[in-house]
Amino acid sequence: METSDIQEYFPFWDKLDNGQKLKLYRAADFRKTKKKTLLHGNDSCLGLVLVKSGQLRIFSYSEEGREFTLYRLFERDICLFSASCMMHDLQMDLMIETEKDSEYWVINADVYKALMDESAPIANYTNSLMASRFTTVMWLLNEIMFKSMDKRVSAFLVEETRIEDSMKLKITHEQIANHLGTAREVVTRTLQYLQGEGAISLSRGTIDITDIDKLEELSE
Amino acid sequence: METSDIQEYFPFWDKLDNGQKLKLYRAADFRKTKKKTLLHGNDSCLGLVLVKSGQLRIFSYSEEGREFTLYRLFERDICLFSASCMMHDLQMDLMIETEKDSEYWVINADVYKALMDESAPIANYTNSLMASRFTTVMWLLNEIMFKSMDKRVSAFLVEETRIEDSMKLKITHEQIANHLGTAREVVTRTLQYLQGEGAISLSRGTIDITDIDKLEELSE
Repeated sequence: METSDIQEYFPFWDKLDNGQKLKLYRAADFRKTKKKTLLHGNDSCLGLVLVKSGQLRIFSYSEEGREFTLYRLFERDICLFSASCMMHDLQMDLMIETEKDSEYWVINADVYKALMDESAPIANYTNSLMASRFTTVMWLLNEIMFKSMDKRVSAFLVEETRIEDSMKLKITHEQIANHLGTAREVVTRTLQYLQGEGAISLSRGTIDITDIDKLEELSE
Repeated sequence: METSDIQEYFPFWDKLDNGQKLKLYRAADFRKTKKKTLLHGNDSCLGLVLVKSGQLRIFSYSEEGREFTLYRLFERDICLFSASCMMHDLQMDLMIETEKDSEYWVINADVYKALMDESAPIANYTNSLMASRFTTVMWLLNEIMFKSMDKRVSAFLVEETRIEDSMKLKITHEQIANHLGTAREVVTRTLQYLQGEGAISLSRGTIDITDIDKLEELSE
C-alpha cells in the first residue's frame, strides 16, 4: 500500500490543513482488480476512484441489455461517478468495469463529501472534475447526433490503435457495438465498408488496420 | 429593477458575509428580451442567467446547421452554461435562445467565479447545479440511444402540452426536428404514424392532441 501517492492526484493538496490531509489519507483504500470485472453498478456507492494503473470503462446500459461507452479512465485519472451518491443531484445509472488488470485507490465517499462541504479548494476541484467529464459526454452526444456510423466506427478504431499501441486489434463486432451503442449487424456492415475502402482487413476476432491514414481520414 | 429578488435563487445566501452579498447584488443586471432571440453563442460569455419569467432553450448545433434541444429553463431556473467561460474545464459550444418573452438577471461571470473560489457553499452549490444539468443531459443521451423515434416524438408532444397548457400545439415538423435532432421527414413520418394510432390530428402548422392517454402510452 502506497497511500502517500494519493496527494499527486489532488492539485489542492497544499491548501489542506494537516487534519484534512490525514482524513483523506485514512479514507484511501488501495485495491487490485483483474480485467473484465464490474466495479460499480447503480445500486452501490464505491467512492472516488483514483486510477494507478490499468484501464477502466464507464458505460451506460438499458433494461434490454444494450450498452454504450461514455469514456475510459487511465493511469492518474479520477472517477467521480463511482462516488455519485455523495451528490444527490447527480443521478445516473452507470456501470464501471476494468478493461485491463487495474490498480486503484478508493476514497470513501462520505469522508470526501465532508471535506468538500468545508473546503472551497476541494469543492472547486470536484467542480472542474465534473465539468471535464460533462464536456466529454457533450462531445459524445454531438458525435452521436451529428456523425454517421462509419465515421464513429473509424474514430473508435483509431482510438483503439492508440490505446493498445498496435495495428492488430483483437476485438469482436459485438464489443464494438457495445462501445458505440448500436447493433452488431450495423458494425459488421460498417466494417465491411471500411475493408472495401482499403483501411482495414477483417479476420475472425481480429481487425488489422492496413491504412491508418485512410482510417483517420474516414473518421473526419 | 428588483435586484433584491436574486437572493431567492441562491440557497447559500445566509452563509455569505455582507461583503459577498453586496458583490453578488452589484454583479446582477436585470434584462428583458423578446421571444426568439439568441442570448448566447459559443464566442461570448454572458454570465450566470437567473430566469424571472419566460422560457429559454439551450441547444447544441452542428456546422451543417443541424441542432437539438438539451433542455428548457423556466421561472426560477439558473443557467450555468452561459457562464461556462468561468470554468475552463467546461468547454461546450451551446446556444441559448428565448422561446417566449423573458425577464432574467445576468450575474457577471468574473464576480461569480471570484466568489466561488473563496466560498465553499457557493462552490458546492455550483457543483449541485452542474450535477443536475449533467443528469438531465445523461437522461437525454440514454433516450437518444435506447428509445425509438416514435417514443421520443410522443414524449416531446406530451411535454409541449404541459408547457403550453394546451392540447392544440402550434408547432411545425421542422421545429420538432430541431428539438429532437433529426430530419424533418422522419418527424413527418412519425407524426403520421401517431395520427394513424388516433393519438393526434394533423393540420397545417397545428397538431391537435386528440388522445393524451394514448400519446403518453406511446411514449413509454
